[in-house]
Amino acid sequence: MSRLMFQLPDLTTTTLALLDATDPLAAKREEFVLPKDTIYLDGNSLGAMPKVAALRANQVLTEQWSQDLIKSWNNHNWIDLPHTVGEKIAPLLGAAPGQVICCDSTSVNLFKVLSCAMLMQPGRSKILSQAGNFPTDLYMVQGLASLLGEQNCQLVLVDDSEDPDALERAITAEIAVLLLTQVDFRSGRLLDMQRLTALAHAQGVLVIWDLAHSAGALPIELDAWQVDFAVGCGYKYLNGGPGAPAFLYAASRHHTHLTQPLTGWMGHQAPFSFTTTYQKAPGIAQFLSGTPAIIAMSVLDAALTVFADITMQDVRYKSLALSHCFHQLVEQQPALASLNLITPLQPHARGSQLAYQHPQAYALCQALIKRGVIADFRAPNILRLGFTPLYLRYADMGNAVAILADIMDSQEYLKPEYAVKQKVT
Amino acid sequence: MSRLMFQLPDLTTTTLALLDATDPLAAKREEFVLPKDTIYLDGNSLGAMPKVAALRANQVLTEQWSQDLIKSWNNHNWIDLPHTVGEKIAPLLGAAPGQVICCDSTSVNLFKVLSCAMLMQPGRSKILSQAGNFPTDLYMVQGLASLLGEQNCQLVLVDDSEDPDALERAITAEIAVLLLTQVDFRSGRLLDMQRLTALAHAQGVLVIWDLAHSAGALPIELDAWQVDFAVGCGYKYLNGGPGAPAFLYAASRHHTHLTQPLTGWMGHQAPFSFTTTYQKAPGIAQFLSGTPAIIAMSVLDAALTVFADITMQDVRYKSLALSHCFHQLVEQQPALASLNLITPLQPHARGSQLAYQHPQAYALCQALIKRGVIADFRAPNILRLGFTPLYLRYADMGNAVAILADIMDSQEYLKPEYAVKQKVT
Repeated sequence: MSRLMFQLPDLTTTTLALLDATDPLAAKREEFVLPKDTIYLDGNSLGAMPKVAALRANQVLTEQWSQDLIKSWNNHNWIDLPHTVGEKIAPLLGAAPGQVICCDSTSVNLFKVLSCAMLMQPGRSKILSQAGNFPTDLYMVQGLASLLGEQNCQLVLVDDSEDPDALERAITAEIAVLLLTQVDFRSGRLLDMQRLTALAHAQGVLVIWDLAHSAGALPIELDAWQVDFAVGCGYKYLNGGPGAPAFLYAASRHHTHLTQPLTGWMGHQAPFSFTTTYQKAPGIAQFLSGTPAIIAMSVLDAALTVFADITMQDVRYKSLALSHCFHQLVEQQPALASLNLITPLQPHARGSQLAYQHPQAYALCQALIKRGVIADFRAPNILRLGFTPLYLRYADMGNAVAILADIMDSQEYLKPEYAVKQKVT
Repeated sequence: MSRLMFQLPDLTTTTLALLDATDPLAAKREEFVLPKDTIYLDGNSLGAMPKVAALRANQVLTEQWSQDLIKSWNNHNWIDLPHTVGEKIAPLLGAAPGQVICCDSTSVNLFKVLSCAMLMQPGRSKILSQAGNFPTDLYMVQGLASLLGEQNCQLVLVDDSEDPDALERAITAEIAVLLLTQVDFRSGRLLDMQRLTALAHAQGVLVIWDLAHSAGALPIELDAWQVDFAVGCGYKYLNGGPGAPAFLYAASRHHTHLTQPLTGWMGHQAPFSFTTTYQKAPGIAQFLSGTPAIIAMSVLDAALTVFADITMQDVRYKSLALSHCFHQLVEQQPALASLNLITPLQPHARGSQLAYQHPQAYALCQALIKRGVIADFRAPNILRLGFTPLYLRYADMGNAVAILADIMDSQEYLKPEYAVKQKVT
């Protein structure tokens, strides 16, 4: 990452074109369908569509489902799809085979691993997280507490927004489980997974990492860092389509003594024996619950082929370079002096997005979208920009910042049509 | 149903053709894509593909996701899809608006309603079901018990396979929740939902009905029969595609005092406020958890339009007529005397399938499939045949039985290639 620690000379269109010309990932853009005249800086909310995704969906419907019907479970290996997809995601996470499975939503998978982890920690009742963690992570803990009782399961939140070290200090032997998202959905701050996991383990604390904003965006080493459990999202950097199935990682050293409560038939050791008593499947299959979502999972399976011939190191390099260029271009624009970057600039401390505070962040975001730059707003005042190396160009950085500067200069964002309303992302 | 209680004259090809010619649902077959030279008697495992499903999938990928990207959540009403689909399913269930939502899998939805119901029944710990219920129903109870503790949650099974009244006798004031599947997945026996619900309520017992084998196959009156909760499957009679999202019904009288534990962000009253404390959404939305599976749910949404211009009474009539014809044809064939029907023949006591016991049921099933008649095997010795009125013809009944008789007569099913192996359905 040190390649990015020097200040680039003033970025010009020519420089950006040169960066594109020498970009080893440049050809990847051709593997996606992208709308015309759009710079898409929201791949951290919903990844763009790989061309193979549409082809695969069509194949699953018109060739498999419609023609082979129920026989497809065997003939087209539908039944293995949760494993097939899991094993395609595993290398992106630094996970050896047999530890990642594709199923359900991130929220539902959180419930499974939270339950497992709590049942492994008798005598400890506290689940520690950050107050700024993505809400569904916190809500799922609260849901589990509603079943287990507050005396057995309490969510403990640390507000480390002003004091980044507060989190580490809160990791004590009183904690049962540390639940963290690797990259903060608002600020883009990247936590040190290796260090925090080691600190937790030193206190007998189990760790669950939510990789929603990091899987497919940066190298992760779940095995090497001794992570216990992880979950993540198929529709952001993995480009699996809206509401794509999620994934779940459980370290193989835990597999034999886990009890996850969503014990559906697909997690049974012999689902087609139709016995009355649940006997969990060996290995990662024990995390399956209902019938797998074949159409959606097939689309994700196809989308993952985009990663087959690239390294996460190259992805990470370009992600940091794109965002570095973007921010340097912002700094070159006097019109943009009112934007306050809240993302740490050091490469080791940020994910694949930049977040700027501005009192008019919502209106700025709407004005950008109107001009074809798809950004994201996060309440109350954050303009969030995601950098997806597989389909963004360096030239896009120049154009996006130029448009943003023009919107600011012209006060275009003050138009009444950009006034605040609820937005869905 | 009384139209079917008389014995038809010996069924001939001509009679069957006449029934097809006067069938008010005959034109529906044209709305499906079906493989050539196939008689599909397994729509109770995986429904056939409506033509609109493939069109919709293509539209969601190539027009919505790829072109409008994140804006699609608003522009194409993705965010409302769980409600939109729920409201299309509701009339098939006899449910007034605001009580049915599409989400997750049947298994996961079972966990939600089981948890809700148990929390509503302090002092009672027993969940009563049939030993022959579909395994995932039983397994989800066992999973809930692993969290709540056996003293707070026990599965009580009644084996009513030899004594159908045993179930009613087991409904006592000791029971917290009665969990039943309306149509038995093996035998096709149809339970009297209205009577069993009333018996349960008289004992202070809450009821959960699994409609996997009945939704879209026969008229259901959840509201009129005062059902508390129901769940069901999108990929059988609703033709939503392999692993389609499931649905969940909760009677509106319960909405204000429910606590379901899979409290993901989409079930929050203000998901985009990103607050740290879960506050459940009003109404049926409280059962949402993670981000909805848009591609899969859109396919189901499209598939449901097939039901828009028909009545469940017509569907039920044809379902009973098809299966009645099938069985009468079986009885006309001396070669098929060794098939032992275990489905009750009375219309009020059976769903939309027939199940025959035969020592060689697996081999018979395989031989049928080889000849283009897609049937299903259920261990240890059941040949299961589903009758889906929207795309089956009366003529298919004649052909299917003729092929079955030929397989039996010729002993074709004894070929080694049809020997037992694990089959996925």
